[in-house]
Amino acid sequence: MGLLLKEVRRNPLLWPLAVVPVLFALHIARPESHAILFVLSVFSIVPLAVLISLSTESVAAKTGDTIGGLLNATLGNLTELIVALTALKAGQILLVKSSLAGAIVAKTLVTLGASLLVGGLIHHIQEYNRVNARLQGSLLFLATIGFLVPSLLAESESVLEATASGNALSLALSVLLFAAYGFGMFFSLHTHSELFTSTASAPEHGELWPVGFALGVLAAVTIVVTLVSDIFVDSVQYAGAAFGMTPAFVGFIVVALVNGIAELAPALSSARKNRLDLSIGIALGGAAQITLFVAPVLVFVSYFVGPAPMTLHFWPGAVAMILIATTTALLVTNSGRSAWFVGMLLLNVYLIFAIALYVLPAP
Amino acid sequence: MGLLLKEVRRNPLLWPLAVVPVLFALHIARPESHAILFVLSVFSIVPLAVLISLSTESVAAKTGDTIGGLLNATLGNLTELIVALTALKAGQILLVKSSLAGAIVAKTLVTLGASLLVGGLIHHIQEYNRVNARLQGSLLFLATIGFLVPSLLAESESVLEATASGNALSLALSVLLFAAYGFGMFFSLHTHSELFTSTASAPEHGELWPVGFALGVLAAVTIVVTLVSDIFVDSVQYAGAAFGMTPAFVGFIVVALVNGIAELAPALSSARKNRLDLSIGIALGGAAQITLFVAPVLVFVSYFVGPAPMTLHFWPGAVAMILIATTTALLVTNSGRSAWFVGMLLLNVYLIFAIALYVLPAP
Amino acid sequence: MGLLLKEVRRNPLLWPLAVVPVLFALHIARPESHAILFVLSVFSIVPLAVLISLSTESVAAKTGDTIGGLLNATLGNLTELIVALTALKAGQILLVKSSLAGAIVAKTLVTLGASLLVGGLIHHIQEYNRVNARLQGSLLFLATIGFLVPSLLAESESVLEATASGNALSLALSVLLFAAYGFGMFFSLHTHSELFTSTASAPEHGELWPVGFALGVLAAVTIVVTLVSDIFVDSVQYAGAAFGMTPAFVGFIVVALVNGIAELAPALSSARKNRLDLSIGIALGGAAQITLFVAPVLVFVSYFVGPAPMTLHFWPGAVAMILIATTTALLVTNSGRSAWFVGMLLLNVYLIFAIALYVLPAP
Repeated sequence: MGLLLKEVRRNPLLWPLAVVPVLFALHIARPESHAILFVLSVFSIVPLAVLISLSTESVAAKTGDTIGGLLNATLGNLTELIVALTALKAGQILLVKSSLAGAIVAKTLVTLGASLLVGGLIHHIQEYNRVNARLQGSLLFLATIGFLVPSLLAESESVLEATASGNALSLALSVLLFAAYGFGMFFSLHTHSELFTSTASAPEHGELWPVGFALGVLAAVTIVVTLVSDIFVDSVQYAGAAFGMTPAFVGFIVVALVNGIAELAPALSSARKNRLDLSIGIALGGAAQITLFVAPVLVFVSYFVGPAPMTLHFWPGAVAMILIATTTALLVTNSGRSAWFVGMLLLNVYLIFAIALYVLPAP
Repeated sequence: MGLLLKEVRRNPLLWPLAVVPVLFALHIARPESHAILFVLSVFSIVPLAVLISLSTESVAAKTGDTIGGLLNATLGNLTELIVALTALKAGQILLVKSSLAGAIVAKTLVTLGASLLVGGLIHHIQEYNRVNARLQGSLLFLATIGFLVPSLLAESESVLEATASGNALSLALSVLLFAAYGFGMFFSLHTHSELFTSTASAPEHGELWPVGFALGVLAAVTIVVTLVSDIFVDSVQYAGAAFGMTPAFVGFIVVALVNGIAELAPALSSARKNRLDLSIGIALGGAAQITLFVAPVLVFVSYFVGPAPMTLHFWPGAVAMILIATTTALLVTNSGRSAWFVGMLLLNVYLIFAIALYVLPAP
Repeated sequence: MGLLLKEVRRNPLLWPLAVVPVLFALHIARPESHAILFVLSVFSIVPLAVLISLSTESVAAKTGDTIGGLLNATLGNLTELIVALTALKAGQILLVKSSLAGAIVAKTLVTLGASLLVGGLIHHIQEYNRVNARLQGSLLFLATIGFLVPSLLAESESVLEATASGNALSLALSVLLFAAYGFGMFFSLHTHSELFTSTASAPEHGELWPVGFALGVLAAVTIVVTLVSDIFVDSVQYAGAAFGMTPAFVGFIVVALVNGIAELAPALSSARKNRLDLSIGIALGGAAQITLFVAPVLVFVSYFVGPAPMTLHFWPGAVAMILIATTTALLVTNSGRSAWFVGMLLLNVYLIFAIALYVLPAP
């Protein structure tokens, strides 16, 4: 507990932990105050995601490169998975899908863009290993393409949503994507691990926790996140309406950003230290994990949880935004050099997406 | 006046100046001869655009790098702006939009393609600084993406054209694009000016004009261009029909090419001297200026001039052509090497666009 | 004949030649067994395509680089051309179009992907000449773009299919593509032949045949392929239904793969020898030949053969798959380095395409 308090004093991202008890108290006292519950649950998820990331890193550091890499890759998306599972259970499939699409876009535009901007403001021109960046960019692009094929090939929306063939296609595709994820882990952790500079090997904080303590924190935080997710998903639809936000906006922008903040901190910190390779790895690798791991898992689980199976079919605007974001990330990381203006333009594209989603009618 | 005559003798692009008085005389004598007036006004705009470019360079050369760069960037599109403003005033929004889209495509396919073809016919393989070309290509790509987002995300055409939310989106977007333009000027003229080899520093003609004379020419030509634009816009719709051209073809191909000829000359001349970096800078930089400067300015102005506000929503074919052209330019300039066949294929794609626009029904 | 038997003993791809007489016998005895005839004709085409490729190489090796290159480029697609012509004659335009689209996709995803996978499993990281790969990738991209313009610009499907303007556009486009093919041959065989490592100069088999013998084989095989094509096209529609395959799946996947196997063997063999430049040249060059040579030729011929002229208009799903495949090939060959996982992801995307085409309703 002392270790936890020490970390809290050091890391401002953990300070909103104080909001968590307030959230639970208010949920019991006034369960109908959806707007306030929504805001408080958003603020609660951020520090909990940071805690999961810290404890995962501490466990991973003790287990050797391969198992550590597996842990990082799998638990790195735990918050995303828990929130999405809660939403699946509540039948809010549009929220799940838009948060998946939004996570890919947020990682490739916000995490990458903010890293390039912050790094570029400190260092005039930043150079990085463009061969590895290109390989990672190609992997992300191919993963995304596989992920988007059903949306791109369906002639009409109705085909994939409600029919048996639509479900069969998404299920077959999820198996292929998940298999590619497995081969990708084998590739990045075993046969070609030298290409992937381990993000776990760059300790972001003063000291790592003992494994037992870290596992305890992981278990406790997982339970808390599950409870917070319940309140969050419950309040979303009411709160969205109260703030004039469409469900697509809430999932694509709010949920995705909330889930992504834990990863943003180490990416920015690496960029400040002129280690853009790490920042690019966090951004592109994180986006690839959504398409190859989180999304297929949710499709599988949707057959057991919730009212209807989820497909991998996205509305055309989401497809366009995902394609733009991943192509942009690929092209931008292609040059091996960066300056602040490139980062600013990436953030600008994200801002335009957010405004368009806010203004335009919901899909 | 002696300076002007000297320049005219030297520069064949200025010889069509002789057409200008004929145009005005015919407009008074036979204002209903739309087809001839259209052809004559097209021929008049070319030398006037060249004169604007010459006088801007002369002023810019005297004012130091930063202000000179600003002048070049702003006045480099003066002809485009004047013609578009005249069309806006006349309520011809489709003509304005298609000339904007066509300008981006003409700069990235024709200016770049012709430079690579002409340069490649003289020099076996041309090498250029691929790092800078890639940075400029990325900037153009990101600028274009921002510019196209409303068109890509709108589920139906009606959403963006006529509604309040469509207008709000285009206005907010124009503010963001214009801000990006400001930051881009700061980037290219101040913090990272070494990346952008100044096109102004490569004098294309024997001598620069004195500032006072250049400013006088600038003022006079601006007035003449405004008068010619009036005749041009007035005759376009009748003449287009007479020549079997749709309004989209006239704006996308004819207006865009006429406006672009002034920039084509220095781009080709640099390519012939094996200085492809300059040619690429003119082509990609010019296209980026359309998306970040000319288009937002026209959206702002459309609130004060003309019957209805203009949005940044383009018909799907225009979106496809802009995306193809900018992606192509980005990919082609990515390699750092060029040969004549690459230029020929770029021009071939443009020719296919022109034929398709001529043959297919108007949007 | 001894030479032929010697080759058959050496090359397992020729063993299915034994199927050819069985096919002809069965076609006379039981012409209504469409499913078996379909399977047997598929197996017959593979060895015949290999024989055409072997005899073309033998002739080309004797005729010098330029004429040899022309022969290879033209006769390399002889099987594709004969099958497509037979289908055109039978009025099966959808089969022709989907086999064209599928050929581009199969070359860029399967030939390239299998080469990168097989090569990468043997060699840890494979390096190749990225400048030439990029130039070839750019050429393929530009060729494909030209090829796809009518499909991308047509606002509605009906415009291009049935109307005079749709036919005129496809015809004009075919002339431009064919001209680009001519200039491309001039470029790759004459002005810049050093950029294109000749695939003919890498003899895949122990010895070349004498020219007279090779020409005899070529003539005989062409006749046999024509007869087999008749049976194949005749049985396709019945057999597709029997196996639950849509016509789009048969053309896009089955016909394209059958035609592509002859090229796959030398591409894989080069990859195994760590000569990825050759593999990339076979894959990207083959795809470019479909767009610039085979497709325009079929458009021209469709005016003399078959019930109606063929256009270059493809259904949206085919356009998406072609764009994805060529962009992917371009990006992947952009880095100059490859590892097995990149190849696996390319094959994965192809598998997803195949599943989607099988599951989704036909266009």
